[in-house]
Amino acid sequence: MRDQYYEQLDQIVDELVLITDRVRTAVAAATTALLDTDIATAERVIGAETTIEQSIDEVEERALVLLATQQPVATDLRQLVSTLRMTADLQRMSALAIHVSKIARRRAPEPAVPLPAQPLIRAMAKVADSMIGSAARIVSERDLGAAADLEVEDDEMDRLRKDLFRLLLDGEWDHGIDSAIDLALLGRYYERVGDHAVNMARRVVYLVTGELPVA
Amino acid sequence: MRDQYYEQLDQIVDELVLITDRVRTAVAAATTALLDTDIATAERVIGAETTIEQSIDEVEERALVLLATQQPVATDLRQLVSTLRMTADLQRMSALAIHVSKIARRRAPEPAVPLPAQPLIRAMAKVADSMIGSAARIVSERDLGAAADLEVEDDEMDRLRKDLFRLLLDGEWDHGIDSAIDLALLGRYYERVGDHAVNMARRVVYLVTGELPVA
Repeated sequence: MRDQYYEQLDQIVDELVLITDRVRTAVAAATTALLDTDIATAERVIGAETTIEQSIDEVEERALVLLATQQPVATDLRQLVSTLRMTADLQRMSALAIHVSKIARRRAPEPAVPLPAQPLIRAMAKVADSMIGSAARIVSERDLGAAADLEVEDDEMDRLRKDLFRLLLDGEWDHGIDSAIDLALLGRYYERVGDHAVNMARRVVYLVTGELPVA
Repeated sequence: MRDQYYEQLDQIVDELVLITDRVRTAVAAATTALLDTDIATAERVIGAETTIEQSIDEVEERALVLLATQQPVATDLRQLVSTLRMTADLQRMSALAIHVSKIARRRAPEPAVPLPAQPLIRAMAKVADSMIGSAARIVSERDLGAAADLEVEDDEMDRLRKDLFRLLLDGEWDHGIDSAIDLALLGRYYERVGDHAVNMARRVVYLVTGELPVA
């Protein structure tokens, strides 16, 4: 009975890592859709939402069943509570990948990101990708050092977003208001993806230490 | 011992409602700061974040202590799990009120919202305010009918956001790219406030019925 319980706890972590990987793939695909004006890929990301939602529902259900039937305490309790927080982050990241894909789809066959903004969006997407990858590793290995690195990447993301605003507002933007709005929202979406990766890492810190790091 | 436990459970609900009211006040004040270019109010909202954060930390701590020490089942367990979800929504709404205030502060002494966009932003803020008020009532009274009404208000919010985009993109926007970007982000912030109110209502539906409503 207890063996089964620990197996279930481990399985929950494995599934969280799996879903995080799927979300990472979705965000990367959304970026491809966006920068290559690749509608098929945009549609694929949008269509895959249900699959990710289902996996999230399943892992939440498992966590709730363990909470209700095993009356866990200490680290086990924190792991289940953290799981229910992290699934909310994963759900949001998945939704943000879809927002990015929808911008790509809406502008097609025109590219949604004019040439001068492409390096910045590419850089933000790269940082977001790396942050989700770190979050997956942190969840899987409970690596608190990597959690601190994530905060550094988050600062880099903030800098990139400021650069993007500077580009839009330097008075020489001649690609129209619609693309400026798209870019402002895209900047926000990638930044939020990064924030959710940081949140996940913080949940792991809480799980291991019992203390939430100071934000 | 059990009496104290139920008292604690009730107290958690009372505090959730109290925090929701505070968040509602913060969002309303942020709107005043924005539409009246009222910097003192903007600063007040930005300064009040710590107070709201502290209340949220406290109610989470209470919920975690009950989870760890009372091994609740059924409805009580769901209430505590829902609490830990709703605090995340409240935290985000509080952050969004601050984002709105910061836009007001950044543009001052100029108004961040040019005249032609004021009615739409005012309408979005009004819907957001009403949605947070409904969320507070739903948490306090477990009123599932009101939860359904909230979804209707959410549709109204979507319509207003589309109207806002139409206004920015109709080719006659002559208030510059910077204000168009501010407005696109403001639209997103109010919409997200509404989404979090809907999330809170859904958590109450789950709490009462054991089932999450289909999104």
